[in-house]
Amino acid sequence: MPPQPVPPSHPSDAGAALPGTGPACAHDACTVGIDFGTLSARAVVVRVRDGAELGSAVHTYRHGVIDRSLPGSAVPLPPDYALQDPRDWREALRTAVPQALAAAGVAPADVIGIGTDFTSCTVLPVTADGVPLAEQPAWADRPHAWPKLWKHHAAQGQADRINALAHERGETWISRYGGRISAEWQYAKALQVLEEDPEVYAASARWIEAADWIVWQLTGTESRNTCTAGYKGIHQDGSYPSPAYLAQLHPDFADFPATRLEHPLLPLGARAGTIGAEAAARTGLAEGTPVAVGNVDAHVTAPAAGAVDDGQLLAIMGTSTCHVINSRDLADVPGICGVVDGGIVAGAYGYEAGQSGVGDIFAWWLRQGVPEEYRAAADAAGEDLHGHLTALAAKQPVGAHGLVALDWMNGNRSTLVDHDLSGVLVGLTLDTRPEDVYRALLEATAFGTRVIVETLEEHGVPVTEFIVAGGLKKNPLLMQVYADVLRRPVSLATSDQGPALGSALHAAVAAGAYPDVRAAAARMGSVEHDVYRPDAEAADVYDLLFAEYRLLHDHFGTGTDPLLHRLRRLRNRARSRQAAP
Amino acid sequence: MPPQPVPPSHPSDAGAALPGTGPACAHDACTVGIDFGTLSARAVVVRVRDGAELGSAVHTYRHGVIDRSLPGSAVPLPPDYALQDPRDWREALRTAVPQALAAAGVAPADVIGIGTDFTSCTVLPVTADGVPLAEQPAWADRPHAWPKLWKHHAAQGQADRINALAHERGETWISRYGGRISAEWQYAKALQVLEEDPEVYAASARWIEAADWIVWQLTGTESRNTCTAGYKGIHQDGSYPSPAYLAQLHPDFADFPATRLEHPLLPLGARAGTIGAEAAARTGLAEGTPVAVGNVDAHVTAPAAGAVDDGQLLAIMGTSTCHVINSRDLADVPGICGVVDGGIVAGAYGYEAGQSGVGDIFAWWLRQGVPEEYRAAADAAGEDLHGHLTALAAKQPVGAHGLVALDWMNGNRSTLVDHDLSGVLVGLTLDTRPEDVYRALLEATAFGTRVIVETLEEHGVPVTEFIVAGGLKKNPLLMQVYADVLRRPVSLATSDQGPALGSALHAAVAAGAYPDVRAAAARMGSVEHDVYRPDAEAADVYDLLFAEYRLLHDHFGTGTDPLLHRLRRLRNRARSRQAAP
Repeated sequence: MPPQPVPPSHPSDAGAALPGTGPACAHDACTVGIDFGTLSARAVVVRVRDGAELGSAVHTYRHGVIDRSLPGSAVPLPPDYALQDPRDWREALRTAVPQALAAAGVAPADVIGIGTDFTSCTVLPVTADGVPLAEQPAWADRPHAWPKLWKHHAAQGQADRINALAHERGETWISRYGGRISAEWQYAKALQVLEEDPEVYAASARWIEAADWIVWQLTGTESRNTCTAGYKGIHQDGSYPSPAYLAQLHPDFADFPATRLEHPLLPLGARAGTIGAEAAARTGLAEGTPVAVGNVDAHVTAPAAGAVDDGQLLAIMGTSTCHVINSRDLADVPGICGVVDGGIVAGAYGYEAGQSGVGDIFAWWLRQGVPEEYRAAADAAGEDLHGHLTALAAKQPVGAHGLVALDWMNGNRSTLVDHDLSGVLVGLTLDTRPEDVYRALLEATAFGTRVIVETLEEHGVPVTEFIVAGGLKKNPLLMQVYADVLRRPVSLATSDQGPALGSALHAAVAAGAYPDVRAAAARMGSVEHDVYRPDAEAADVYDLLFAEYRLLHDHFGTGTDPLLHRLRRLRNRARSRQAAP
Repeated sequence: MPPQPVPPSHPSDAGAALPGTGPACAHDACTVGIDFGTLSARAVVVRVRDGAELGSAVHTYRHGVIDRSLPGSAVPLPPDYALQDPRDWREALRTAVPQALAAAGVAPADVIGIGTDFTSCTVLPVTADGVPLAEQPAWADRPHAWPKLWKHHAAQGQADRINALAHERGETWISRYGGRISAEWQYAKALQVLEEDPEVYAASARWIEAADWIVWQLTGTESRNTCTAGYKGIHQDGSYPSPAYLAQLHPDFADFPATRLEHPLLPLGARAGTIGAEAAARTGLAEGTPVAVGNVDAHVTAPAAGAVDDGQLLAIMGTSTCHVINSRDLADVPGICGVVDGGIVAGAYGYEAGQSGVGDIFAWWLRQGVPEEYRAAADAAGEDLHGHLTALAAKQPVGAHGLVALDWMNGNRSTLVDHDLSGVLVGLTLDTRPEDVYRALLEATAFGTRVIVETLEEHGVPVTEFIVAGGLKKNPLLMQVYADVLRRPVSLATSDQGPALGSALHAAVAAGAYPDVRAAAARMGSVEHDVYRPDAEAADVYDLLFAEYRLLHDHFGTGTDPLLHRLRRLRNRARSRQAAP
């Protein structure tokens, strides 16, 4: 039987009325939320009584995404690797938290709690004391000792075997993951380490989400959260996959969860511990400040966007998009990332879906370059290149570029769950311009979202509202395209730093300022409803284009050994020949 | 019965030995060849006895390709239009010829003949006197009065009907054109004028290839050549399509060839006439200088590259690629542009095939822009951007970019004969770089060539040598890719100005300096054999990639109402809504 989780601490004098102006409430009590993203971490200081964001600071990771070679090494990494450096995360605590406090003009004494969220599944091997193997001299030159970022896509072979065996044995948990465990998640990544560098695997005492590891850094003790354990760690109905199943994948994998994952799970909003002396010195916060249990950037955002009711689908749109939605019912949705009881808020089944490339795809297109005259025109107009291409793309009627794209430049997370897929651009002509491709890519991600929304609804998860959070909500063309393609209004989360606000909101719960996450969301979260409404004429043309997208999607994304897989294998063989001495 | 062609003039004292150094030969007698291309015209002065190129000059057309709006007008042209301005062609006579003579240091008295070649099918409506309707004030604002450049692709609907009816009626000539008449050719373009602007059609006394029109400008009298009449004008076995067939397309089209095309046809190398007073004043050449009959840029090049033997396939690679090859046998080759008796040189069946976008596709990719650091690196290395991307692309092993493209950004001429097709890029990932796409586009055109070569061989036209002429022969990576993809050596035409040299060569025949084109080719043409040889390992990988290309080719290029056609229709509808007031 797994250990019982520690319930969130609720001071006896706290209650729903607490964050008001009464004497029981330290007026202007604050919490700190830190969102650990792909390229940077953002800290925000939030007023507990109304969610006002008083100050924030961003720390850009020095090593960013490690996908060419390890820091200080010239040895090329294999294809599809994406690693990170834990020093970058620790450094964010040291710089962003004090800077955010300073920006807010808030004293550490007024901070009643701290919460964090992380990209996921970003996962690393550590010692029993939580020291990353990557930071141990004996292992620092071994790529598999390093944290694998969510978008590390080199474990697709392991994921394929995990899925095939689960179906073969009729494992019941597989349907909770849309029938496919992603190559991005804990088991595929761990199995890759075991098979490709068994010494690193043997040296790892624990295999831990960065979401939980960062909390360990703050509190000095290990904790684990229900969200990542459920979505990324295959923890369902109280247990992990069986040793018998795991042994069939690899004999030495049988005890993987028992040795490297098992730990009491805390619900979201629970207090994981308090700030220890070392973390206090690092962050400038007071020792003893309550720390919320770890959380995921997507899931933590839902309450910040007021999206805690059943049917409210929140799309957190940035480099990639995560979709989270609650439902009272447990449904089997094919290709969904996962469904976890209480995975977003207690008392509902939380569903997660995702698109592994969105803003990353638009940025990829800009990395191909733009004509010099575009750059000059953008400079003259005071626009960045994204803004300039968006403005040009917005001028054309729907369909005028003649293009349809498949948005799989970073694989497909939902609903195909296949990271060996790649992007496709169809309909190119000699008069195709940069803004045409740019617009087609915007649209492709909207089509990808429509596939997810339709799949949810067809399988028993009604979608009553579509809410967008994340940096891309500021692109009005993109938002209008989503409204038109989805044929439904688009609501916008009010905050521009949704995950960090969500972490601060969970910190308030962990500190006992609110009885639960829903109560905190009612006071600290905020959404503007129906900001973009679908245009019927545009939506009609998009229906036609979506039909073509769907045909391409099925042609290139389904079937046995599809062409895109064969191309990927050719590519990897060619690159490995190149890398060979 | 059609009128008999005038044979080329052969002075009684001329013979195979004539261009030597004997007294019968004016030593250093020269001819002038002019190649009218898509964006410019090039004149070259050539020594008759050995083909030495003594001087040349280029005239860039002021109006280039007219595809947005007519000169001096803001009214947008419909999609897929590509027009030209006859003034640009006349201006080339006035500037390039005297400049080439000056560069060569050759006096007009030493010029014994002039020859020309043109892009084809570039075709225009003229009065009975040869005045372009586009130059008549009454018609100058009507797009259909303007010359339609070869890559005018807006007559696909007409071409589809021409083909369907030909097959329905069992017209025997259709098999000479691979089963499909191109939208680029005389009948589709003329029918489009008739149907879309019947007043312009009615006002046109003659419908003439620019290849013949430019000769009319030089000689003052109309002439027509067997080559364009055969390949682009459906002249087979002595006659044009029947009035009964044409009337079924449109009642007013029944007399189209009789009224607007019919004229004695001259074989290639024949003398069309001599320079008149006006043309003498314009070009600086002596009145009375013999003028060769019109010719096509591709076909005229074959003798210049020494490619007059059966089985020598000459690919003239520039913005597009034309393939010409002779065979002793008449074969039905599906999707070939055409087969014409004596269409390249007398005494053989001349086959033509083509790819409607090659260099244009590489340039299209550069028009999307390149990263600023690429531009800086190219500048630092003293390379142009094509050279820089080629150098980067050359560093990677075959298949390492993981991409396959369909080279249809300007439609497909052979073997699908479908200009409503468009380009496809498959296998894109977030780490796809500009040089990766560039290389994939180079390879795609090689795969397109392989389809053509295989189709020729499978249908009875053996290919014994692959010879490249045209600007792209200077790209060593491209040439090696072709050798590897085709698994055969690539020979290179020696001259860098093959078409202009070919025109000068034909001028020498028209002037009587050689008895026929083959004899002239033996002295004035030149080729370097087997400059690039296939690499077996690369060829093996390309076999795998070509198999994927072939699958994409068939998926996107065949079948009823393919996806690319539907996208094109959506595009055109959207654009016409945009253009509407």
